[in-house]
Amino acid sequence: MDVPQFLQQVKEGRLSIDEATQRLRQLPFEELGFAKLDHHRQLRTGYGEVIYCPGKTAGQLVEIVRHFQAAGTGVLGTRATETQFEAVKAACPLAAFDPVSRVLTVAPEQPAAAVGLVAVCTGGTGDLPVAEEAAQVAEFFGSRVERVYDIGVAGIHRLFARLETIRHASAIVAVAGMEGALGGVLAGLVEVPVIAVPTSVGYGASFGGIAPLLTMLNSCAEGMAVVNIDNGFGAGYLAGQINRLINRKKEI
Amino acid sequence: MDVPQFLQQVKEGRLSIDEATQRLRQLPFEELGFAKLDHHRQLRTGYGEVIYCPGKTAGQLVEIVRHFQAAGTGVLGTRATETQFEAVKAACPLAAFDPVSRVLTVAPEQPAAAVGLVAVCTGGTGDLPVAEEAAQVAEFFGSRVERVYDIGVAGIHRLFARLETIRHASAIVAVAGMEGALGGVLAGLVEVPVIAVPTSVGYGASFGGIAPLLTMLNSCAEGMAVVNIDNGFGAGYLAGQINRLINRKKEI
Amino acid sequence: MDVPQFLQQVKEGRLSIDEATQRLRQLPFEELGFAKLDHHRQLRTGYGEVIYCPGKTAGQLVEIVRHFQAAGTGVLGTRATETQFEAVKAACPLAAFDPVSRVLTVAPEQPAAAVGLVAVCTGGTGDLPVAEEAAQVAEFFGSRVERVYDIGVAGIHRLFARLETIRHASAIVAVAGMEGALGGVLAGLVEVPVIAVPTSVGYGASFGGIAPLLTMLNSCAEGMAVVNIDNGFGAGYLAGQINRLINRKKEI
Amino acid sequence: MDVPQFLQQVKEGRLSIDEATQRLRQLPFEELGFAKLDHHRQLRTGYGEVIYCPGKTAGQLVEIVRHFQAAGTGVLGTRATETQFEAVKAACPLAAFDPVSRVLTVAPEQPAAAVGLVAVCTGGTGDLPVAEEAAQVAEFFGSRVERVYDIGVAGIHRLFARLETIRHASAIVAVAGMEGALGGVLAGLVEVPVIAVPTSVGYGASFGGIAPLLTMLNSCAEGMAVVNIDNGFGAGYLAGQINRLINRKKEI
Amino acid sequence: MDVPQFLQQVKEGRLSIDEATQRLRQLPFEELGFAKLDHHRQLRTGYGEVIYCPGKTAGQLVEIVRHFQAAGTGVLGTRATETQFEAVKAACPLAAFDPVSRVLTVAPEQPAAAVGLVAVCTGGTGDLPVAEEAAQVAEFFGSRVERVYDIGVAGIHRLFARLETIRHASAIVAVAGMEGALGGVLAGLVEVPVIAVPTSVGYGASFGGIAPLLTMLNSCAEGMAVVNIDNGFGAGYLAGQINRLINRKKEI
Amino acid sequence: MDVPQFLQQVKEGRLSIDEATQRLRQLPFEELGFAKLDHHRQLRTGYGEVIYCPGKTAGQLVEIVRHFQAAGTGVLGTRATETQFEAVKAACPLAAFDPVSRVLTVAPEQPAAAVGLVAVCTGGTGDLPVAEEAAQVAEFFGSRVERVYDIGVAGIHRLFARLETIRHASAIVAVAGMEGALGGVLAGLVEVPVIAVPTSVGYGASFGGIAPLLTMLNSCAEGMAVVNIDNGFGAGYLAGQINRLINRKKEI
Amino acid sequence: MDVPQFLQQVKEGRLSIDEATQRLRQLPFEELGFAKLDHHRQLRTGYGEVIYCPGKTAGQLVEIVRHFQAAGTGVLGTRATETQFEAVKAACPLAAFDPVSRVLTVAPEQPAAAVGLVAVCTGGTGDLPVAEEAAQVAEFFGSRVERVYDIGVAGIHRLFARLETIRHASAIVAVAGMEGALGGVLAGLVEVPVIAVPTSVGYGASFGGIAPLLTMLNSCAEGMAVVNIDNGFGAGYLAGQINRLINRKKEI
Amino acid sequence: MDVPQFLQQVKEGRLSIDEATQRLRQLPFEELGFAKLDHHRQLRTGYGEVIYCPGKTAGQLVEIVRHFQAAGTGVLGTRATETQFEAVKAACPLAAFDPVSRVLTVAPEQPAAAVGLVAVCTGGTGDLPVAEEAAQVAEFFGSRVERVYDIGVAGIHRLFARLETIRHASAIVAVAGMEGALGGVLAGLVEVPVIAVPTSVGYGASFGGIAPLLTMLNSCAEGMAVVNIDNGFGAGYLAGQINRLINRKKEI
Repeated sequence: MDVPQFLQQVKEGRLSIDEATQRLRQLPFEELGFAKLDHHRQLRTGYGEVIYCPGKTAGQLVEIVRHFQAAGTGVLGTRATETQFEAVKAACPLAAFDPVSRVLTVAPEQPAAAVGLVAVCTGGTGDLPVAEEAAQVAEFFGSRVERVYDIGVAGIHRLFARLETIRHASAIVAVAGMEGALGGVLAGLVEVPVIAVPTSVGYGASFGGIAPLLTMLNSCAEGMAVVNIDNGFGAGYLAGQINRLINRKKEI
Repeated sequence: MDVPQFLQQVKEGRLSIDEATQRLRQLPFEELGFAKLDHHRQLRTGYGEVIYCPGKTAGQLVEIVRHFQAAGTGVLGTRATETQFEAVKAACPLAAFDPVSRVLTVAPEQPAAAVGLVAVCTGGTGDLPVAEEAAQVAEFFGSRVERVYDIGVAGIHRLFARLETIRHASAIVAVAGMEGALGGVLAGLVEVPVIAVPTSVGYGASFGGIAPLLTMLNSCAEGMAVVNIDNGFGAGYLAGQINRLINRKKEI
Repeated sequence: MDVPQFLQQVKEGRLSIDEATQRLRQLPFEELGFAKLDHHRQLRTGYGEVIYCPGKTAGQLVEIVRHFQAAGTGVLGTRATETQFEAVKAACPLAAFDPVSRVLTVAPEQPAAAVGLVAVCTGGTGDLPVAEEAAQVAEFFGSRVERVYDIGVAGIHRLFARLETIRHASAIVAVAGMEGALGGVLAGLVEVPVIAVPTSVGYGASFGGIAPLLTMLNSCAEGMAVVNIDNGFGAGYLAGQINRLINRKKEI
Repeated sequence: MDVPQFLQQVKEGRLSIDEATQRLRQLPFEELGFAKLDHHRQLRTGYGEVIYCPGKTAGQLVEIVRHFQAAGTGVLGTRATETQFEAVKAACPLAAFDPVSRVLTVAPEQPAAAVGLVAVCTGGTGDLPVAEEAAQVAEFFGSRVERVYDIGVAGIHRLFARLETIRHASAIVAVAGMEGALGGVLAGLVEVPVIAVPTSVGYGASFGGIAPLLTMLNSCAEGMAVVNIDNGFGAGYLAGQINRLINRKKEI
Repeated sequence: MDVPQFLQQVKEGRLSIDEATQRLRQLPFEELGFAKLDHHRQLRTGYGEVIYCPGKTAGQLVEIVRHFQAAGTGVLGTRATETQFEAVKAACPLAAFDPVSRVLTVAPEQPAAAVGLVAVCTGGTGDLPVAEEAAQVAEFFGSRVERVYDIGVAGIHRLFARLETIRHASAIVAVAGMEGALGGVLAGLVEVPVIAVPTSVGYGASFGGIAPLLTMLNSCAEGMAVVNIDNGFGAGYLAGQINRLINRKKEI
Repeated sequence: MDVPQFLQQVKEGRLSIDEATQRLRQLPFEELGFAKLDHHRQLRTGYGEVIYCPGKTAGQLVEIVRHFQAAGTGVLGTRATETQFEAVKAACPLAAFDPVSRVLTVAPEQPAAAVGLVAVCTGGTGDLPVAEEAAQVAEFFGSRVERVYDIGVAGIHRLFARLETIRHASAIVAVAGMEGALGGVLAGLVEVPVIAVPTSVGYGASFGGIAPLLTMLNSCAEGMAVVNIDNGFGAGYLAGQINRLINRKKEI
Repeated sequence: MDVPQFLQQVKEGRLSIDEATQRLRQLPFEELGFAKLDHHRQLRTGYGEVIYCPGKTAGQLVEIVRHFQAAGTGVLGTRATETQFEAVKAACPLAAFDPVSRVLTVAPEQPAAAVGLVAVCTGGTGDLPVAEEAAQVAEFFGSRVERVYDIGVAGIHRLFARLETIRHASAIVAVAGMEGALGGVLAGLVEVPVIAVPTSVGYGASFGGIAPLLTMLNSCAEGMAVVNIDNGFGAGYLAGQINRLINRKKEI
Repeated sequence: MDVPQFLQQVKEGRLSIDEATQRLRQLPFEELGFAKLDHHRQLRTGYGEVIYCPGKTAGQLVEIVRHFQAAGTGVLGTRATETQFEAVKAACPLAAFDPVSRVLTVAPEQPAAAVGLVAVCTGGTGDLPVAEEAAQVAEFFGSRVERVYDIGVAGIHRLFARLETIRHASAIVAVAGMEGALGGVLAGLVEVPVIAVPTSVGYGASFGGIAPLLTMLNSCAEGMAVVNIDNGFGAGYLAGQINRLINRKKEI
């Protein structure tokens, strides 16, 4: 519905008060100007769109990517397969793929300059795929990212050797499997929000990530919250969002 | 250790290189200048200190409170009992207590002006104690707070009626028990970080808060993370931290 | 907002198109005519309102009950305590209380005639409080109810002895703890929807109702669904709703 | 046993009282006229029979299908494989197969007209296979079905845009994985029974569908019950049963 | 229904074939001679009846006990309280009560001689209440019982010192909490059925008896099965039943 | 150690009291005559030996089978693969294999006559592999077995039609997945021990057999115990043991 | 049995070879010289005996304590109550009680000198009762103990300030609730065995100690093992045992 | 940083007190002499380094192995694949591989003599891979190892036959799946630390090792602690560490 035009019809008497009242009450919400609900989506569009790739056919994926590319918009696909990437690549030569994180990207025509700093830290090397997903998502949505990998608490001096780097960040992503203590240790050492991601790395009583999930939820360090097991995307998005909000405001 | 004085001794030859090397290697970390580790604690001290009250005797509590008050610092105690409060009140007449959230406070001598806005939302009235803890913690650490209670998704039109208010916040705390869907619905409607708190409100297959915890971890809405069940303190602290970082930077 | 009056202002030019457009976009949803969202609540009001009593003070409860009584509306309170009832009784002499199900009721001024039939069945005598909650809720909202108690499958001939009675119902509530097999057995013998309620009755590996919950979810009998552990209210409401829909339509 | 004939023998003295008593006590129940137990199965037979395909060989399946087809009865097979379908197709050219829901059907010779309306809703596109199973089962047993897909609560305005459609249904199936909040939101907005189906779609702490299962069980919205994880068949059958009962009665 | 009388009426023509057919089909099962279903109950009645006491008022209990005593039947009540016993005692001076197992008994007028042997073994002294329930139930239903307590595997030489005694039993009840290994060790050493009972004795990761329950279910010793946590009654009944069947047959 | 020879040496003074005392204290238990511990194994040997096949190479399996065959002893292998069977078959042409239960057997030279009766019952056709394992194990160890399949409680009249058959057994194995109610219903209808086996048949909240396991543990029917999920061997062995004990004694 | 005397009888022909053989085979194991099984218990007796107090009456406790005291042996009771202590104190004035750890002790007449060093560390002050139980048990059995409390990883600089102290120990007990990361961090920093004790301190998703238990089991630090939740006794005993073995050997 | 050189610069005035103070505060910890943190690693290097192989490419693995071999250091890789071994073998002919435990080793140039004794025991043959990992890790780090396999408690006489052997060890590793009772039985019979390893061997309610894990945690035998499910490495490392500490001290 074109709201001004609708009101114009009321004003000009082409629509009776009763009929207009009735139409207002029955309007699908979206048509009523609820683009407002999508403000943050529009904002994000400056960077590009996100696609959750699992379960999508190569054909569907190509179609979606083409649609956004035609609009000059970047695209980020998570958990893509090599096969999905090849199909997209054929249709869209600028597409890139990171086999570690399985993130597929098509850069927007005019990428925005990255702001602030998100530090993405991991406990071990096995946490890399999840950490890379977080890092690339944060970068895609306009944050500068520093990777600080393999600083797990079983050899905690390695963490201290990188602490100064970590402290410059506006938000931290802490990715850890097994015992998952990294998040709490970091949150006890920094002044900025820590988004902890448990990973399914481990065996035995790790229970596919439940152990580090519980560790992180039960940390008594202040300034930390947790996302789902292996949810690098969610942590990268949230840490990037916090980083952009902090650093965007600064510029105003 | 007084580091400059130590180095002066080296310079003046009163301390041999060998002995000084030895002492450096054995120094307790803290003395080496690790006040830096406490920067955020000092910063926070502007607002006051936090005490987790359960398990502390009234006597211990009074002693701690007096110590901080002598330093002109405010104090916030979580999960205090009526009895603990009365003991503190006798020793420190300015102490206040909120029986709903069981938060005990002694305001600092010169409270800082509150900045920004944190919206604390709940699904039902039963979530109030946890939400109030979050709200009062955020306020104690210098954030303005708007309470938006009882907007659970089983009557979702109530949520929409308050949406404009919620959207003005820099960070949102979403407190919900039972099905716990509030966090995901909010995160889908706003552009700022949502910190979700599952509560142990409910019965049967709520399992003391596991049900809303899982709901919140599994939300596919972007921009949300989760703290422990009933952890109003953690959510209020983190949301306040994000809010202060966003709004402090703006002023510089 | 008074929508017709608003449109009148547009029509008369007292409100510019731009300003009216702006106001429309910002309207709280509810004011826009969303009473429609409450249709089923209004409908239900013919029977009365439901109050979840735990956590409410006697004072709050009395106030709520008075408010509805003033409107000639009945009230049903679930999980009330003896103390809460006494407070209500003092203020409202018509209030009744069933100590088994802990249901507190104030009948509406003009109760509707009960329609159809809901059969409320239990496996053992320990399931009675939950079953009575279901039965009284169904009755409160206008369904006729037949109680068929203590027909658990460990002595299945008792069930068969009551089968004819059960088969006359339009909807069945099957309440069972321990092994919880009652629901599946009933659903295999009747042609109408069975709403199964696991109860926390039992010990050991019953795990507070998880055992019968899983039994009921895994039944391969067709025509059954499950509500939360001990949720007699939910089952009674849903079975009553189905029964009223079936029998109301008939009359038209 | 032919009961009248048996009694005739008693009457004519060809069977002594003692012997007849003995025989009566030992009769297999079924022979005693317990076809009554199968009334609802006969009723259903008007639409056709249901086969749970997993674990059945192609040969067994073909045999079963032929048997029903010979009787002019339709057949619905759930969770069939492509291979099973091909075997059935070869023997029975009218067989159809939906690869999304893996439902295999042979229409009855004289299909009954569909009555009423069941709305089958999903949270995301990943929930489609389960939703389609529900939809096709409801259709097979004589209900009209409206599909309302991808209206999950992380973008809740999409749900509102379809609300009028949903409200015309006599029963609603709400299929959702991940956080699983769809069921509770719908039940809060409509006046008819909602049958919620948790799906195993998701990862991490979704735990193969436990997360949405708990969400749905803990909803405080009235008028909803839950079936097993991924049990589209069960939900479609129950919703269809409710819909038929409501609309069949109307016609009488 | 009196079946011979019914058939007589048919024979004499006082009941038409049609009417008789109709009555046969509608008979409540029990009346049709299903006393047969209660054979084992009648058999058991030789020993007396069992009452699960929790949730029953003292009044109800007294009434039940009186009813059986009038019939000369013994009564066994499980999980009785001291208060319940005192009420029963007042009405029925022969009642006895064991405060350890909380078993309340009224011996039958003519108790049968005990046959065979059931060995009831425990891992520790904390398992005594459950073991005593098992022992007394087995005794009540006519088995001789040997108690072999405190032979847990953490000091396995104690078990070996009692092995000859245990080996004379026809069935063994193995009661153990904590690690619960007793059952498997016994089943590896004897030739008769072992009924294992996990108890909720323990703390920490015992989880109220889940640890010994899993231990017992996972034993690779042949000839053992498990009952519910703390279910001394169930184990004593089953072991007694096996013992009676073995030793009763012998005498014939 | 040859005990009589040892004592002879003592008697003849060839072994000093001290030395003999020392040797007695250090004897490996087994050598001291602990064949007694293996009595039940020897007894069983009359029927043959049991091999748990998973993880064994074809070569190892052939060697074991040959060893027993040379001794004229039968062999029963559980959970064998087709490949393992083929290797055994090549070396030992009398070997037989049942692909449903994956039981591999070599009959003993002089099989004992089967005694008594074990009834093996299943809820559905999917429970067949587990039930067949139970049945064949009971048969292998000398029990007569009656198979009563597909009598699950969702169509409980099928169970009643077979009840007379079931009642002739000395022990019953009840195999059921999904809701697992079969065991409790049977135990309520018979006078003999019921050994219940939960199976991992099912999906969703069946959780690989936890649902029927809990159902069976929580049954309030008397005279039932439970073995591990899918443990057909254990149930068949125990039911066979009970049946043999009951019927062997009778003959003496 | 007196073995030498038995052999003497064989030697002197007072016992025939046959009879002696028979007696040897039937001997209760213990009598055969199995005091050897109790060597470690005798060894321990030098320090005293341990009593698990819960469930014991004051009278039983007094009797046990008196018995050991008469033998000059010390006694250590775990999880004693104030009431139990008072009863013991009355009978045995030297008895001592620590209300924090609930450890009751009566020192042996001639306590051995403590050897080596066990460091008992805690994450927070709430872990004190469990830690004190560990410390006092290690001391009771002859180890020197250093307490290093409140060094949890949320403020990890506190841990580093105490590291030199910790490194002098031969074995470390790490007691922690909530996230439970202390054990893994310590094991990564020292060269000696770390025995980790999860505690039930915490709330929400701590699940009574499951969270720290899983953290500790999943640590990738080498040289750590875990005892049951809150099992201070077990950890103190094991760490003390390791410490004594290391330091006892040194002296030889 | 070269600390003596740094201090020399201070002494000679080439570095001002202020600047030196600043540098000290900002030093990465490691450079400050934190080799101390690696003392135990250096110590261990005498034996060689450990690599967790899963997730490493053959190329990465070869590079790591070459690096250590160049330094004359041995290497132990856990959970290696046949393929990984072949790649390493090609580059380093001395490499060895055990397909059962999947341990890959390159012996150091000058292996130290093995000291003391670690006994590695298993319940069944299925536990061998985990036990071999433990045994080889203990051997690699300089302990003598005795393997005592297949002594599970379902045939406990086998355990007793090997007890004397086990008692000579300074530390015991007890590996067991299914019911997992081995650890507790052993700890009740010996005077040295028992490190228990639950394995994922088993089926049904073994839940991938949870059953033996809980059994071991709940043992009331003194002197035992537990590592993660299937964590042969951790148990072998810890038992070896204890054994070396006990036997190393002796030599001083």
